[in-house]
Amino acid sequence: MHRLGQVLVAAVFMAVGLAQAQPIAVVNGTVLDGNGGEPIPNGVIVIDGKRIVAVGTRDVRIPRGAKRIDATGKYIIPGMMDANAHLVYEISPEFMARFEARLGDIAKETAQVALKNGITTLFDTWGPLEQVKAARDDINRGTLVGSRVYFGGNIAGVNGPLTADFHGAPPQELSKETIARINAMWEQGIGHELMFMTPEQVRVRIRSYLDKGVDFLKIAVSGHGSWTSGLLSFSPEVLRVMVEEAHARGLIVQTHTVTVEALRIFAEGDFDLAQHCGTTLRELKPGDKMLDLIPDSTIRLLVDRKRSCTLNAYTKVEIRRRIGDPEGHIDLDSPYSVPADPSNTRAIEALIANQNEKKMIAAGVTMLMTTDAGIPWIDSPLINRTSPCWRNKGQCLHFLGEGHIAWLRAVQEKGMAPMSALQAATRNIAAAYHKLGDLGTLEAGKIADLVILDADPLADVDNYTKIHLVMKDGAVIDRDALPTVKVITPLNAPRLATR
Amino acid sequence: MHRLGQVLVAAVFMAVGLAQAQPIAVVNGTVLDGNGGEPIPNGVIVIDGKRIVAVGTRDVRIPRGAKRIDATGKYIIPGMMDANAHLVYEISPEFMARFEARLGDIAKETAQVALKNGITTLFDTWGPLEQVKAARDDINRGTLVGSRVYFGGNIAGVNGPLTADFHGAPPQELSKETIARINAMWEQGIGHELMFMTPEQVRVRIRSYLDKGVDFLKIAVSGHGSWTSGLLSFSPEVLRVMVEEAHARGLIVQTHTVTVEALRIFAEGDFDLAQHCGTTLRELKPGDKMLDLIPDSTIRLLVDRKRSCTLNAYTKVEIRRRIGDPEGHIDLDSPYSVPADPSNTRAIEALIANQNEKKMIAAGVTMLMTTDAGIPWIDSPLINRTSPCWRNKGQCLHFLGEGHIAWLRAVQEKGMAPMSALQAATRNIAAAYHKLGDLGTLEAGKIADLVILDADPLADVDNYTKIHLVMKDGAVIDRDALPTVKVITPLNAPRLATR
Amino acid sequence: MHRLGQVLVAAVFMAVGLAQAQPIAVVNGTVLDGNGGEPIPNGVIVIDGKRIVAVGTRDVRIPRGAKRIDATGKYIIPGMMDANAHLVYEISPEFMARFEARLGDIAKETAQVALKNGITTLFDTWGPLEQVKAARDDINRGTLVGSRVYFGGNIAGVNGPLTADFHGAPPQELSKETIARINAMWEQGIGHELMFMTPEQVRVRIRSYLDKGVDFLKIAVSGHGSWTSGLLSFSPEVLRVMVEEAHARGLIVQTHTVTVEALRIFAEGDFDLAQHCGTTLRELKPGDKMLDLIPDSTIRLLVDRKRSCTLNAYTKVEIRRRIGDPEGHIDLDSPYSVPADPSNTRAIEALIANQNEKKMIAAGVTMLMTTDAGIPWIDSPLINRTSPCWRNKGQCLHFLGEGHIAWLRAVQEKGMAPMSALQAATRNIAAAYHKLGDLGTLEAGKIADLVILDADPLADVDNYTKIHLVMKDGAVIDRDALPTVKVITPLNAPRLATR
Amino acid sequence: MHRLGQVLVAAVFMAVGLAQAQPIAVVNGTVLDGNGGEPIPNGVIVIDGKRIVAVGTRDVRIPRGAKRIDATGKYIIPGMMDANAHLVYEISPEFMARFEARLGDIAKETAQVALKNGITTLFDTWGPLEQVKAARDDINRGTLVGSRVYFGGNIAGVNGPLTADFHGAPPQELSKETIARINAMWEQGIGHELMFMTPEQVRVRIRSYLDKGVDFLKIAVSGHGSWTSGLLSFSPEVLRVMVEEAHARGLIVQTHTVTVEALRIFAEGDFDLAQHCGTTLRELKPGDKMLDLIPDSTIRLLVDRKRSCTLNAYTKVEIRRRIGDPEGHIDLDSPYSVPADPSNTRAIEALIANQNEKKMIAAGVTMLMTTDAGIPWIDSPLINRTSPCWRNKGQCLHFLGEGHIAWLRAVQEKGMAPMSALQAATRNIAAAYHKLGDLGTLEAGKIADLVILDADPLADVDNYTKIHLVMKDGAVIDRDALPTVKVITPLNAPRLATR
Repeated sequence: MHRLGQVLVAAVFMAVGLAQAQPIAVVNGTVLDGNGGEPIPNGVIVIDGKRIVAVGTRDVRIPRGAKRIDATGKYIIPGMMDANAHLVYEISPEFMARFEARLGDIAKETAQVALKNGITTLFDTWGPLEQVKAARDDINRGTLVGSRVYFGGNIAGVNGPLTADFHGAPPQELSKETIARINAMWEQGIGHELMFMTPEQVRVRIRSYLDKGVDFLKIAVSGHGSWTSGLLSFSPEVLRVMVEEAHARGLIVQTHTVTVEALRIFAEGDFDLAQHCGTTLRELKPGDKMLDLIPDSTIRLLVDRKRSCTLNAYTKVEIRRRIGDPEGHIDLDSPYSVPADPSNTRAIEALIANQNEKKMIAAGVTMLMTTDAGIPWIDSPLINRTSPCWRNKGQCLHFLGEGHIAWLRAVQEKGMAPMSALQAATRNIAAAYHKLGDLGTLEAGKIADLVILDADPLADVDNYTKIHLVMKDGAVIDRDALPTVKVITPLNAPRLATR
Repeated sequence: MHRLGQVLVAAVFMAVGLAQAQPIAVVNGTVLDGNGGEPIPNGVIVIDGKRIVAVGTRDVRIPRGAKRIDATGKYIIPGMMDANAHLVYEISPEFMARFEARLGDIAKETAQVALKNGITTLFDTWGPLEQVKAARDDINRGTLVGSRVYFGGNIAGVNGPLTADFHGAPPQELSKETIARINAMWEQGIGHELMFMTPEQVRVRIRSYLDKGVDFLKIAVSGHGSWTSGLLSFSPEVLRVMVEEAHARGLIVQTHTVTVEALRIFAEGDFDLAQHCGTTLRELKPGDKMLDLIPDSTIRLLVDRKRSCTLNAYTKVEIRRRIGDPEGHIDLDSPYSVPADPSNTRAIEALIANQNEKKMIAAGVTMLMTTDAGIPWIDSPLINRTSPCWRNKGQCLHFLGEGHIAWLRAVQEKGMAPMSALQAATRNIAAAYHKLGDLGTLEAGKIADLVILDADPLADVDNYTKIHLVMKDGAVIDRDALPTVKVITPLNAPRLATR
Repeated sequence: MHRLGQVLVAAVFMAVGLAQAQPIAVVNGTVLDGNGGEPIPNGVIVIDGKRIVAVGTRDVRIPRGAKRIDATGKYIIPGMMDANAHLVYEISPEFMARFEARLGDIAKETAQVALKNGITTLFDTWGPLEQVKAARDDINRGTLVGSRVYFGGNIAGVNGPLTADFHGAPPQELSKETIARINAMWEQGIGHELMFMTPEQVRVRIRSYLDKGVDFLKIAVSGHGSWTSGLLSFSPEVLRVMVEEAHARGLIVQTHTVTVEALRIFAEGDFDLAQHCGTTLRELKPGDKMLDLIPDSTIRLLVDRKRSCTLNAYTKVEIRRRIGDPEGHIDLDSPYSVPADPSNTRAIEALIANQNEKKMIAAGVTMLMTTDAGIPWIDSPLINRTSPCWRNKGQCLHFLGEGHIAWLRAVQEKGMAPMSALQAATRNIAAAYHKLGDLGTLEAGKIADLVILDADPLADVDNYTKIHLVMKDGAVIDRDALPTVKVITPLNAPRLATR
Repeated sequence: MHRLGQVLVAAVFMAVGLAQAQPIAVVNGTVLDGNGGEPIPNGVIVIDGKRIVAVGTRDVRIPRGAKRIDATGKYIIPGMMDANAHLVYEISPEFMARFEARLGDIAKETAQVALKNGITTLFDTWGPLEQVKAARDDINRGTLVGSRVYFGGNIAGVNGPLTADFHGAPPQELSKETIARINAMWEQGIGHELMFMTPEQVRVRIRSYLDKGVDFLKIAVSGHGSWTSGLLSFSPEVLRVMVEEAHARGLIVQTHTVTVEALRIFAEGDFDLAQHCGTTLRELKPGDKMLDLIPDSTIRLLVDRKRSCTLNAYTKVEIRRRIGDPEGHIDLDSPYSVPADPSNTRAIEALIANQNEKKMIAAGVTMLMTTDAGIPWIDSPLINRTSPCWRNKGQCLHFLGEGHIAWLRAVQEKGMAPMSALQAATRNIAAAYHKLGDLGTLEAGKIADLVILDADPLADVDNYTKIHLVMKDGAVIDRDALPTVKVITPLNAPRLATR
C-alpha cells in the first residue's frame, strides 16, 4: 500500500498542475531564449496549455484572463537538459543486494530530483531498461511529476553492472543468481556477447533490442571496462549494421569512445553524438615523457561535419583532487605534465581530458552539457572510488542536482563563453537528439519548459542555482514537494546537507 | 664460470658435428619428402655440408667416400617445424622471481629440447626479446646446438606477462620494480600503449621495434587478455600501417584472433598467417542455446586467398578433460552441445574450436602445425590452470617435446589425411613463413634437416616418437647429450618421467 | 501494515489455541516419556491448561468433558528440544545487505519452522540479540506461535558475523558503515575486545551484558575464527570471572571448544555444558601420519563429573561427502585415515570428530542433541561452503527442520541406543539447561509439550518425521499454517521441495 | 665456486685476526664498563687472547710487549648486544622465491653487518633453523667474521613465514610445494600444530626440537598472526611442560605476548624474558573512548620478580609516522588519544605501547635493548607495509645497523637515564640470557668484546654511531671489509646510502 500511496499522491498533485485552462504570462523578466542572441529585457512569454504561444517584449499580446507571473529583476532560461545522466547510478554489489526491488522507485526519485533542480529533460544513457522505461512512461502519461526522460537502455556491447566491464572483476560476495538477475536487467541481449557475432547476427540482436522501445541507441565503440581500456568493441562492418538499424527507425546513435582512434571512427562515421569526446586515455610506460592529445585533424573533422560532443568536464578544483595535487604544483596546461605515479590512470585521464577539452572548445566543436550523474548513495562501499567528492560542493560533476553547475563552471574555466555554455545546456542538446521542434529554446510553438532565476546566469555560474520557479509542460512545479518518491535521498540526508 | 662452461661444452660438441668434410648418404629407407606425393621406397638422400644435394632412389649417385647411414625399414621425413612455440613458456610470478636471471638459459634449453625431439625449426611467437634473440644467434653461429629459431618478440598491442593481459589482473605479491622490469623484457615499446595512439604514432613505434632484429611481426588483432576477450585491438588504419612497415622490410605478418569478426579481418586483409584460426570465442548468456561457428563465407575466403592457419588442435581426450566430460556424455560434433556451466569459458572455447577445425580441415584451408608449447615448470603455481595435463601422456599440446604428437593426433581425429598432417608439420610452415627455399621438404638444394623414424608415421601417429636419428644442417645430432643447458628440466625430472 | 497484519493473524490464531478451558486426554498410544524406561503401551496423558496432570495407563482418571485425542497405533514423545540452533543462521554479506531490516522477522519465521517440525524448545546459542529476544518474548507472551526459545546472544570473545572470526577476513564489498552496524547487533560489548582486557575489566563488560536479559552465557574458550583455530581466547582467571558472574545470576554457562586442551579446561572447570565436544581440530604437517583423538583421561573426567556435551554429529553419508570420499574408500574408524590433501581441514575435522564421538558415546558421556541449524537461504553465495547438502535429504545437520533427524541417525550409526538418542533430544537437554522442572519428559506437573508420531521412532529414525500432532503449552498446533511469517521460506521453495 | 670463495676469503681474514699472540692495552680512554657506575677516565683495559685480563686506571699493569691502542678523548663501551634480531628478516613471497637458496648466505651477511655496526652479540629469536645455526657455528669456529649469534629457531606454536600467522592469509602466487618447503625451514615440528596437542604430546615435540641445538626457547604465549591477535596459544599446563623441558637443559625461556593477560601470565610464571613487554594490543569498538594500559599490579610484579623485558621502543618521530600524525596534533601522553580511524590497529598499538613503556621505565622494570631488526630488502613488495621508514634515518627500529640507535634514542625520550640505556644494551641482556659470566661488561675475565667511540654516548645518542674501533673476542675487526658475504646489501645500495 505504501508505494501505491505514493503514486496516488503524485497523480493527484499532477492533476492539479494540469488542470489549468488558464493561460500564463511571464512578464518583466530578462529572457535568454537559448538561441544565443542578445538577452531580451522586459520580456514576455505567453503559455497556453503545454506550449509557448508567444515570446517577445511589451508588444506581445497577453490573453485576457491570463495568470501573470512577475519576473521583474529575474532571468528566464529554457528548461535545462542533461545529455547524459543515469536514473540508476550506483552499481556497488551492496547497493544491488539492498535495493534490487526498489530500482524502479529510485529511477522515479532521480527524475524528480533532476526536475527540482531545473533539469526539465534528461537523457538516460545506461540503465536497467524496464525500470527506466517505467519512469519515462509514468512521467509522460502524467501520473508522476519528474524530469522528461529519454533513454537508451544498455550500451551495445557492454555487460551489466556486476561484471568485469564495470568492476574490474565480477563481485565475489554475491550469489551467481543475484549477479545474473541484476546483469540481465541491463544487458537485454546486447551485452558483451555481441563481440563474438557476425554483422548479421548482431543485426538480429539490435532489431530485437530496438523493439523494446528505447529512444536512441548507444554503442560502445571503445570497450568500457578498466581492462578493456582502449580496445575497440566492433569492426567497421558491425558498427555500420547497428547504425543502419537505428536510423531506419529514426533513432539517433551515440557512441562511447575513449581513444583518439575511436574518436576518429566516430568523426568519420555516420553517428549523431559522441559521449565524453575529450576522454582519450593513455597508458604510460617507463620513459614516456608526454601525453598525446586528440590530433588537430580529428578536431577539424568534428567541426566540419558538425558532430555533437559531450564532455565529462571537471572543474580545476576537481581535476586537482583527481590528480592528487590540491595545492596546484602541476601545470594543467602542459602536455608534459605527467603524474608522479604513472600507474595513476585516473590522473592521466584527467590531465589529458582537460587539454583536449580546451582545444575542442577553442576550435568550436558543438558541445552538449552532460553530467554522467545520478543520485549517489552515501553508504556506498564504492564511494571513494567512483564518487569521491561529497565535500567539494558545486564541483562534483557526477552528483545529480549540482553536477550541471560543476559542468557549466568547468567549461567556462576552459574558455567557453557564458552564452555558449547556456546553449550547450539547452539548444545544442535538443538539436543533437533531434528534439529541436519541441525543446531547447523559448520560442512560440515549443513546449513550455523554463526556469526563472533570481540573478543573471551569464554573470556568475552560481546564479544557475538561484531558482525562482521551474515550469515543465506549461505547469509550475511545486519544487518543495519533490521528490515524492523517497528511497535514497532520506538515507543521504544525515551526511549530505543538500538533500 | 658455470654458464660459460656450458657454452664451451656446447661449442666443442658442435664443432665436432660440423667437422665432417665427408658427404653423407642416407640409404634404403622410405622417403616422405614433404611434397605430399607417394613415399619413395628404397630412397637415397645425399648430403654434402649443410645441404641436400640429391634425393631419389637407387639411381642417385652416391659420392665416393660418403658416409652411409642405413635406413632399411625406416622412414625419413623433413625436420619437423613448429609454427608457434615459446622458448620461455612459464609466466607465473614465482617463476619470474625465481628465474629472472636465467631466462636466457631457459630459452637455450628449450631450443635444445625441441631439437632432441625432432623439431629442427621453431617459430617463437612471443617471448623476452633479448633472451630469445641470443638463443637464436648462438644457434645460428654454431656455438649452441639447438633447434633453428625464428622469433617475433612481442605481440603488437599486448602487455608483458605480469599484467592483466596475461593474469586477469596484475600479480599482487611481487614488487612494482620487479613487475616493471619483467614486463619491459617482453613489451619493447609495442605493448598496450599502442591502443592509444594514432596510426602515425604507431608507425614510429613499429619501425623502432623492427629495428631490434625480429624475424616476423605478430599483431594482436583481437585483444589478448581474459577481460579483453573478443575486443579488437586496432582500427583498420592502424593495422594497415603495421603491415606496411613489416612488409617493407620483407617480414611476414601474423595475427592473434579470437572472434569470427577478427578472423574475417584477417582473411580480407593483407596478412600472411593467422594463429589459432579455429579459436572463435563466445560468451554465453542465459537462454543461449547453441554455439556459433566460423561462417562458411569466411572459410571460403581463407581457401580462395590461400591464407595459412595454425590450429590449437586438442585431441578428443584433452577436449573431454577441458569440458569436464571424461566419460563422453557430450556430443563433440553438435553446435547444441553447450557446457553445463555457461561460465566455463574454457569448455565453450574447446567445443567451438573443435567444430571450427573440422570445418576448416574439410574445406581445405592450408594448415600449419603449432603447439603454443614450451617447457612447463613442474612447481608452477599456475600448472593446474594453464597446463593441466601432466598425466595424459601424448595428449598435451602445450608441452614442448610431445605437444606436436598431440597435434598430429588431433588433426587426424578431426579428418586430416596423414600425409596432409605431415605437410602441415613441414612444408606448409616453411611456405607460410617464406622459408621454402631452404626448409620444409627433402629436395636437392635444401638445408639438410631430417628425421629418421623407426616406423611409418603415416600408419600411426605414435611412430613420430620412434626417432632413430635427427639431422640438422647436415650434422647428426647427439640427442642423448641434449639438453646441455639444464635449468628447468632437472627440476621437472622427479615427476615428469620424460625429461 | 504488512508486518502488523502478520502479527495480528498470529495473535488471533494463538488466542483460539489458548481458549480451551477444556482438558485434553491423549489415549491409546504408546508413551515414550523421556525417562528412558520401558515404553508405556495404551498410555494415557491428561492435560489441563498448559500442564500435564497425569501420565499412566488405563487406570488414569480422565476428567469429565475432556477432549479425547485417540493415539491408537501411535507413539507419544516429549516435545523435542534442540540444544544449539540459530534463529538467524545465514551470515553472508549479501544476506545481510538484503535482509538487514528483516532479521527480526526471520528469527520469528525460524522459530515457527522449528515448531512445525516437532521441536518445541530450542536454545539459540549465537544471534543478533534484540531480534532473537523479540522472537522469544513474542512467543512467551502468546502473540506469536513458535518454538519456545532460550538464547545466549553473543559468544563471549567473538566478533560479529561480518568479521574475520566468521569469514576468514572481513567482507570487501560492503560499506564500513553496514559492516559496523551488523556486527554491533551481535557483539553487544563482549566481542573480540575482551581478549585485551584484565579479568576485572571483563567482569564489568559481562555484567552489563547479562543485564540485557539473555538466558545463559556462552564462552569462546577456543577462538572461533578459521585463523584463530585452536588458540584459547581467555586466561583461566578471565574464565573464572565470567562463570562467577553468570552463576551469580543463576544462569548456566556453556563453552565453544575445538581442541583437546580446551575440552580438558571445560571438563576440569565449573562450566555446565560444552558445545560440539567431539570437535577437536588438528593441523597436519608433512610427515604427520595419524590423527589425535580426545585422551581417555578427559573422557573419564566428562563422565565422572557428569558434564553435558553436544555433538555436531554427521551421518556417514555426510562425512563421506565432507571428506570427498563418496564411494567409501577411506576407513572411517581408523586414526590413520588421513585425508589425501592435508590442507583439507574440513575433512580432518570430520574424520576426528567421528571417532571422538564414538569414543564418548561408548564411554557414556551425557549427550545432547544439537543441530547448529537455522533456515539456510537458497541464494546464498556461501551455500557451497557452509551448507552444501541441499540434495542429501535427511542427512543435513544444519538445515533446521530436518537436521535433528540427521543427528538422531548419526548418533545411532555411532553406537548410541535408540532410547538414549531420544533422551538426548529431550530429557538430557532440559537437565543440562536446568529446565527439568518444566520440560524434557512427559510427567505430571510438566508443561504439556509433546509430539505424536505415526510410527515407532525407536524402530526407525525416519519415523520421527511421521508427525501426527504437535502440542505445545497444552495447545494443539496448526502445523499447516506455519510459518505465518514468510521471509526466506518462500524464496527457498522453488528449489527446496520441503519448504 | 663463488660461495666457496667467499668462505675462504673470510677464513683467511679471520685467521689473521686471531693470529695475535700479542696482548693488547686500550689506554687513555673513558671506560663505561656496563656496570652502571661512574665512567672511568684515563681507563686501561688489558686483553690477552680472547679475554680481558684487567680493567682499571693508570695503576693497571700493562704487559710488556703489549700492543697499545690509544683512546685519548674516546669512550670505551662493552660490545653492544641485541636481544632480538633476525638474520633472515624479509618474509615476502617474492623474497622467498628469489632467495630460497641464499638464505644461509643472507644469515651470514646479516651477522656481519651487525658486527660492523658495533653489535658484537645478537640473539636471533625467529628464523630458518639450519641456516641460522650454520652462521652461528661458522662464526664460533672462526671461519666467518661476524657478530656472535645465539638463536632460538622457531617460536613454539607459530607457523612459518608464508602462512596466515605472518601474512594474514597464505600467499596466493607461490606453488604449494614452495610454500611447504619454506615454511618447514622455520617450523621444525613446533608450529601451529602444537595448539592441538595434549601437554604430553607437546613435551615430545619440544624435546625433539631442543635436540636440534638451539640456544634458548621462545614461546608464543600470545598468538602471533594478525587474526589471532590477542588469543592465547597454550593452556597453563602446556606452558609448564615447555618451560620444564627447556630449563632441564639449562636453556632460558622467553615469551611472545601482546595482551595484558598474557603479560601477567609471563610475570607470574617461570619464564626468563619477555619480548616487547610494552606491546599490549586493543581492538576498538564504536564508543570506546580510551586505551587500556598494563595494570600497575602487573608492572609491580615485573619489578618485584626481577623479570627482564625487551621493548619495541619507537621514537617520537616514528610513532607519529605510524599514527599518521606527522605534525603532532595528537597528545602522545594521554590514554584518551584514540586514533581518528579506530580500525588503524597499528596506530593503536603504537599509542598504547608508548605509554606502557613510559610506565615501565619509570617503575624500574629491567629493560633490554631489542630491535626486531634484520637487513630489509629494498625491492620488497612488503616494504611499505612492514618497514616503511627508509627515509627517516636513525629512527627506524627494524633496520639492522641503525635500529639500535633508534632504540637508544626512543627509551631516553621515554625517560630512561643514558647510563641505564647503555646497560640495557649490554649488561642487562647478558644477564637475562645467562651469559653474564662471559659477556655484557668490561671486567677482567670476560670475553674481550668492546667498542671504542669518538664521543660520549651518554651525552648524545648519535655518538653511538661514531665508531672508532670494534673488538670481538680480543680481535680488532676490519669494519671496512664487512660484509664479505654480499647478497642483499649490494641490491639495497642504490637507494639506501648507508649500505
